[in-house]
Amino acid sequence: MKKEIKELTSRDVDYSQWYNDLVIKADLAENSAVRGCMVIKPYGYAIWEKMQAELDRMFKETGHVNAYFPLFIPKSFLSKEAEHVEGFAKECAVVTHHRLKQDPDGLGLIVDPEAKLEEELIVRPTSETIIWNTYRNWIQSYRDLPILINQWANVVRWEMRTRLFLRTAEFLWQEGHTAHATEKEAIEEAEKMLHVYADFAENFMAVPVLRGLKSASERFAGAIETYCIEALMQDGKALQAGTSHFLGQNFAKAFDVTFVNKENQQEHVWATSWGVSTRLMGALIMTHSDDNGLVLPPNLAPYQVVIVPIYRNEEQFRAVSEKVNEIVTKLRALGISVKYDDNDQKKPGWKFAEYELKGVPVRLAIGARDLENGTVEVARRDTLTKEIVSMEGIEEYIQNLLKEIQANIFQKALDYRASMTREVDSYDEFKVEIEKGGFLLCHWDGTPETEEKIKEETKATIRCIPLNGDKTPGVCMVTGKPSAQRVVFARAY
Amino acid sequence: MKKEIKELTSRDVDYSQWYNDLVIKADLAENSAVRGCMVIKPYGYAIWEKMQAELDRMFKETGHVNAYFPLFIPKSFLSKEAEHVEGFAKECAVVTHHRLKQDPDGLGLIVDPEAKLEEELIVRPTSETIIWNTYRNWIQSYRDLPILINQWANVVRWEMRTRLFLRTAEFLWQEGHTAHATEKEAIEEAEKMLHVYADFAENFMAVPVLRGLKSASERFAGAIETYCIEALMQDGKALQAGTSHFLGQNFAKAFDVTFVNKENQQEHVWATSWGVSTRLMGALIMTHSDDNGLVLPPNLAPYQVVIVPIYRNEEQFRAVSEKVNEIVTKLRALGISVKYDDNDQKKPGWKFAEYELKGVPVRLAIGARDLENGTVEVARRDTLTKEIVSMEGIEEYIQNLLKEIQANIFQKALDYRASMTREVDSYDEFKVEIEKGGFLLCHWDGTPETEEKIKEETKATIRCIPLNGDKTPGVCMVTGKPSAQRVVFARAY
Repeated sequence: MKKEIKELTSRDVDYSQWYNDLVIKADLAENSAVRGCMVIKPYGYAIWEKMQAELDRMFKETGHVNAYFPLFIPKSFLSKEAEHVEGFAKECAVVTHHRLKQDPDGLGLIVDPEAKLEEELIVRPTSETIIWNTYRNWIQSYRDLPILINQWANVVRWEMRTRLFLRTAEFLWQEGHTAHATEKEAIEEAEKMLHVYADFAENFMAVPVLRGLKSASERFAGAIETYCIEALMQDGKALQAGTSHFLGQNFAKAFDVTFVNKENQQEHVWATSWGVSTRLMGALIMTHSDDNGLVLPPNLAPYQVVIVPIYRNEEQFRAVSEKVNEIVTKLRALGISVKYDDNDQKKPGWKFAEYELKGVPVRLAIGARDLENGTVEVARRDTLTKEIVSMEGIEEYIQNLLKEIQANIFQKALDYRASMTREVDSYDEFKVEIEKGGFLLCHWDGTPETEEKIKEETKATIRCIPLNGDKTPGVCMVTGKPSAQRVVFARAY
Repeated sequence: MKKEIKELTSRDVDYSQWYNDLVIKADLAENSAVRGCMVIKPYGYAIWEKMQAELDRMFKETGHVNAYFPLFIPKSFLSKEAEHVEGFAKECAVVTHHRLKQDPDGLGLIVDPEAKLEEELIVRPTSETIIWNTYRNWIQSYRDLPILINQWANVVRWEMRTRLFLRTAEFLWQEGHTAHATEKEAIEEAEKMLHVYADFAENFMAVPVLRGLKSASERFAGAIETYCIEALMQDGKALQAGTSHFLGQNFAKAFDVTFVNKENQQEHVWATSWGVSTRLMGALIMTHSDDNGLVLPPNLAPYQVVIVPIYRNEEQFRAVSEKVNEIVTKLRALGISVKYDDNDQKKPGWKFAEYELKGVPVRLAIGARDLENGTVEVARRDTLTKEIVSMEGIEEYIQNLLKEIQANIFQKALDYRASMTREVDSYDEFKVEIEKGGFLLCHWDGTPETEEKIKEETKATIRCIPLNGDKTPGVCMVTGKPSAQRVVFARAY
């Protein structure tokens, strides 16, 4: 059945619908029979696997190792850190029984009341509590520190309003949990991982991000400081793409994790945690894609190149395929992933539309005339342009083109963000500007009251206090009180 | 603190305690605060990651792609396949609520009775039901088939008696779920994946396995046939290391998954599923390790080579380190993973014991005298032998040695299995022989009654009906009735 590309709602008409259409039609994910939980389909999962592989490499290069902790958290553990429980108790999946049985009155399968758990178990919304309870037994002395562990896992937060990838009840993520002997080292770790996330977002996802600190009200439940990377989507809304938390000694105190320091004194251990999730898929999709479908950065595309043969008969097909196989071999030798779509049940036009929808960065078409002329048609997904290129040296040409596309879509997103970022000095102006979307750099008096007032009146939140932003002091646009530096406001996903 | 190797119980004294000691002392895993759930520690997880990487590559080479399906299964889904629900309903984690709240009487955090789910959710014990419910929407025509999907995931089965890696309430695994247009193709798929598992077990884990079919009573709940690989542990007990199921049309019928075949007729889809889990870690540990600790196959060892410097002063340390760095570079160029342990807080003797415990296949020690002589001390973990080898060409020497070790531990396990496998023709003899452990090849009349009687009286089960075994007919050792071929009995984990 021919896919109707036209069915993709255009971004101008309804950005939100465009996103939903695209996720479904590009075969990335779909809603499951379980409320709020998604099925990540093979094409979507292949992108996630590429993200995982790069992140995992970056974590290991910065000295981290992987481990695995239980899915379940005893209810009592959640309660031990006061702010943490406040943040997660209201939206969690609670396991209360460990057996089903056939109803004696023939009403089918029921929960066996005799199999009630002594203590309820929470499906992890995040793993600080179970991990710090474990770390207590691993840490005695400063010699046992630091512990630099990451976990790839699924987590559950019972969100009421869900959207594929952006907000789902179950999602996949990684969570780093590190333990340190000093406050300084823990802060350095939290900052280091923020920069790892930013490097990944910019160099692999081609998504420019702001690096900053969250305001107190937007911090992770249990953190002293939350660092974040913030991206800007094409509809002018912000998306938090990753967070790294300096947890101080909060979890060490809650779980009684102490160590003997170099001065032979007992001290509580210092902690960080940091995570990115399948939400990154949403950021990736919304940053680059267009009304024709996905646009994928070459560094994360499951296939970087697709080759479509053009032929009228079996003889032409054989001749084209022979040439294609040579090209495939050369491309693979350069580490370029390539798919030769020689399916004879589909027409070239169908394939062109399909791979445009799927965001394959480069498409080659090769026909009988190309064989005569020693040429190949090269189409770029990002610019939707085509050109005829000599077959000679095509592999280096493609290698360079992939780099160019990667750089180009990053630059395009960077330019868009620049065009959508402006300083605003009055609250009246703010109310007008926020309707246009984008990042607004404004002075704020630093109080949660002012922040809350702005949020209520405009739906804008402080996305971050930029780490490398302009540090010039000023006065709050709402209260006129002193402000240490401009902070970034936006409406957000 | 020096690790006391002596604390490892010897296998002769108590094999079961030896296993538990080893898993803990080699830092592979430990029990968590959550009943039956383990923490997989970094060293154990590093081995699991190596297993995952190889299996994932093998799955992809055989045409499979990865995807992800929800953690939760609606209770009603479990009931749809009659045998399946029978197999899993009695030991499952049931989510009944989606919120906690502070008790109004100040008794702490309680389950919010107002947040009761309309339908309970089961934490997946396996995913056939949720996946086949999803496949219904993916399959209309034979052109949509086959679907060849694998999932890496955690699953929960509420086991009452748990042992690290071997039987835990939560475990990590992969589960393949494929959909086919014909019975023949589905059976071929189930068999193909059995052979992938066997290849992996033998060539990477160095664990010889029998390939066979389960008897009806040992089949997966919902399967028409269950193929399995069976390994023999050093205590003479069998361990089921992987299963591959031909599911017929059972799940397609339960979830109404039909397709239009080439003859334009509606037909139910044919299915397979297949899985291996962190249980493989148990098989790996128990097949090769000894009273000194782990013995790891080079193909799965996190570090294949460790290098320990021997020195009396800073000057010697620098000279040795310079040489070591050359060797490290050469080894890495050959794709050999190597760790240089230059920690100056630990003595060489401590390090030797530590890496013996951790099962590192090859240990190099290099001291000042070695520098003079152009030699290096090479110790093999499998044989516990040492030799002095010329520094010249050491990298090729190590490369060959790693291959030799891989082959040697496989052969050793194969020889052990051969010595522990025998034909038994009378039930009296069987009762004597089963006490000695090992695989007993016996004639059986094919009835569940006889199988059950043998199990009750001897604790032995039919491990498999071998695919490639002796097909000579005979008479059942218990009933004297006709038997088509010998089957494999053993006591099992």
